[in-house]
Amino acid sequence: MGSSANGSRTATTNGGAGRAPVDKEVDFANYFCTYAFLYHQKEMLSDRVRMDAYYDAVFRNPSHFLGKWLAFQKRWVFVRKFRRAPIGFQRRLSTHASQGTGSGILAIWSAQAGARKVYAVEATKMAEHARQLVKENKLEDVVEVIEGSIEDVTLPEKVDVIISEWMGYFLLRESMFDSVICARDRWLKPTGVMYPSHARMWLAPIRTGLSKHKMEDYEGCMKDWRFFVEDTHNYYGVDMSCLTKSFSEEQKKYYLQTSLWNNLHPNQVIGTAAIIKELDCLTATVDDILNLQASIKSSINAGDTRFCGFGGWFDVHFRVFLLHPSALVHEGDDLIVDFSMSRSKENHRLMEVELNCEIRQSSGELIPPSRKKFYIE
Amino acid sequence: MGSSANGSRTATTNGGAGRAPVDKEVDFANYFCTYAFLYHQKEMLSDRVRMDAYYDAVFRNPSHFLGKWLAFQKRWVFVRKFRRAPIGFQRRLSTHASQGTGSGILAIWSAQAGARKVYAVEATKMAEHARQLVKENKLEDVVEVIEGSIEDVTLPEKVDVIISEWMGYFLLRESMFDSVICARDRWLKPTGVMYPSHARMWLAPIRTGLSKHKMEDYEGCMKDWRFFVEDTHNYYGVDMSCLTKSFSEEQKKYYLQTSLWNNLHPNQVIGTAAIIKELDCLTATVDDILNLQASIKSSINAGDTRFCGFGGWFDVHFRVFLLHPSALVHEGDDLIVDFSMSRSKENHRLMEVELNCEIRQSSGELIPPSRKKFYIE
Repeated sequence: MGSSANGSRTATTNGGAGRAPVDKEVDFANYFCTYAFLYHQKEMLSDRVRMDAYYDAVFRNPSHFLGKWLAFQKRWVFVRKFRRAPIGFQRRLSTHASQGTGSGILAIWSAQAGARKVYAVEATKMAEHARQLVKENKLEDVVEVIEGSIEDVTLPEKVDVIISEWMGYFLLRESMFDSVICARDRWLKPTGVMYPSHARMWLAPIRTGLSKHKMEDYEGCMKDWRFFVEDTHNYYGVDMSCLTKSFSEEQKKYYLQTSLWNNLHPNQVIGTAAIIKELDCLTATVDDILNLQASIKSSINAGDTRFCGFGGWFDVHFRVFLLHPSALVHEGDDLIVDFSMSRSKENHRLMEVELNCEIRQSSGELIPPSRKKFYIE
Repeated sequence: MGSSANGSRTATTNGGAGRAPVDKEVDFANYFCTYAFLYHQKEMLSDRVRMDAYYDAVFRNPSHFLGKWLAFQKRWVFVRKFRRAPIGFQRRLSTHASQGTGSGILAIWSAQAGARKVYAVEATKMAEHARQLVKENKLEDVVEVIEGSIEDVTLPEKVDVIISEWMGYFLLRESMFDSVICARDRWLKPTGVMYPSHARMWLAPIRTGLSKHKMEDYEGCMKDWRFFVEDTHNYYGVDMSCLTKSFSEEQKKYYLQTSLWNNLHPNQVIGTAAIIKELDCLTATVDDILNLQASIKSSINAGDTRFCGFGGWFDVHFRVFLLHPSALVHEGDDLIVDFSMSRSKENHRLMEVELNCEIRQSSGELIPPSRKKFYIE
């Protein structure tokens, strides 16, 4: 959100190469404020899939929690642990934003699971409610709620487990994993474990009626614009037609190039799914997730159908990138896809995706590649 | 929005006593970014009431524009003028946010009306579109588009007229008038005029069905919360009941204490309307609008009816402050109202209103005063 029109800036970089500086004040205003409402906390805590995943992870891995020291940022828990066991629960995590347990629920569970000490770090005023909740649940001897951002706080010791719910749309939106990495590098013991421990991002071709609807929305919007230009000229003597191209670009970005959060039925996936990124949360760096690139192949396995776009997800939920126009594909066709993703220059918590897709028909014919840009807003 | 959790601040005050410092970076991120979309410009420019008011003002006052020098911030126009004539057009202005003519339409009209020079100052990237529009309308010799905020830019000369569309909900929301005052004090000649020249704020008792709906929304939300608390305790072993009071306060603020933008039919106004503030735009200071206070009397003139809240407006449009519960009132009753309005501590562009209302019944009975707080968000 170009603050260039203003004067001096309080800019801080968060390490790594090739990254735009992050203005913490602006970032706080844009990002954290909505997480300071109990209403949003309630919505997040009502997501049964996510809640069950974390609940099971904590209570089915007692050896990670019993008698351990933990820390917690909106979500961090650290425990002294001896070996790193695979933790399978992330397969059930929802993509429903990287909001989490500002209310302190992960910290409370960790304490209930037997942790000796939990540091619960929360950036917003929600910390006060977390403190209330900890007290009400009689865990104030174990859970210490600290108001501040994980980048700024100092813990009295290193910890054994970090638990956090940091995932945004298509895993990386919101760039919250940066903070997880920072917490890990500063406060996790060499023998410590991460909750969750691994993450994977998937991509597959899909069919969907959304494609048509979105195009209709866009066309309706452009029709309105043309009436508006005509009216403004007739009534107010100003010719605005020179802005039609810019307006069209703005609306195309909004209606056709911005990926959608949507539930998809498995039969809408018309080709084989491919992994475009795997992350080991114990070793991943910010540079690993700054720009993603992948070349994948997907075989159409759904008979003759419209290829309308890509579904992107981590685990069970989907993020949709629509194609305009969609393409006719046939069972046995192969899609050769180059994928790249980077952070938006204007807001480091949003993402831009480029998909270059070539269709190799089973008949031997080749449909030339089309390059599409999408925004995860 | 409370950036207290972060490090150092780039704080600037914009003069006057008793005001919290304004963080320009945060302010820009929160406020200006939506005005950088053509879609929003189109919505604003499609407001026929507002457009007509300004159009008439410019073209029916040729003596203010013919052969004059003008400047323009999203809206400023200044012309060398000899006497200050009353300008009646603001009676028709809509309250529809202080968005305006980032596209440059006021500047173009001013040039078309004969201004010798117009400085059009625009804080967002919309300035580029304004420049395009000026060129397309062959006025680049007259209109100079300057990208920057009026507080920061330097004009080559003082000007004769300032024209601006700065009004937000209930006139003052968005606190854009501060910028108008700054422009006036820095760049208007002693003989200059302001467009608009005057503004008035009104308050009157109303009846409305919204009152009941909003209470139902609030109660529904609290019912959901109680289920949520029960579920969280049963399924996840965490007692969240200690947050019920905080959640209720948060939802009350949202559903019952936040004023609503709404169109009202005149027969919903059940008592005499009173002016709570008059502003002469040529002389008003920021201190005049920081905190408003008024004691007014309103006589019920609508037969026996429910007194459901207050309508607040400037000119033809309304801003509604609902009472919970509403009160039964009778023709001939008098309302004695103490009104005060101040800026939100968290965001200087939002407002907080306190209304203390006493009902003096025509029967002689006195219903004790009730004090209500409202938020203009």
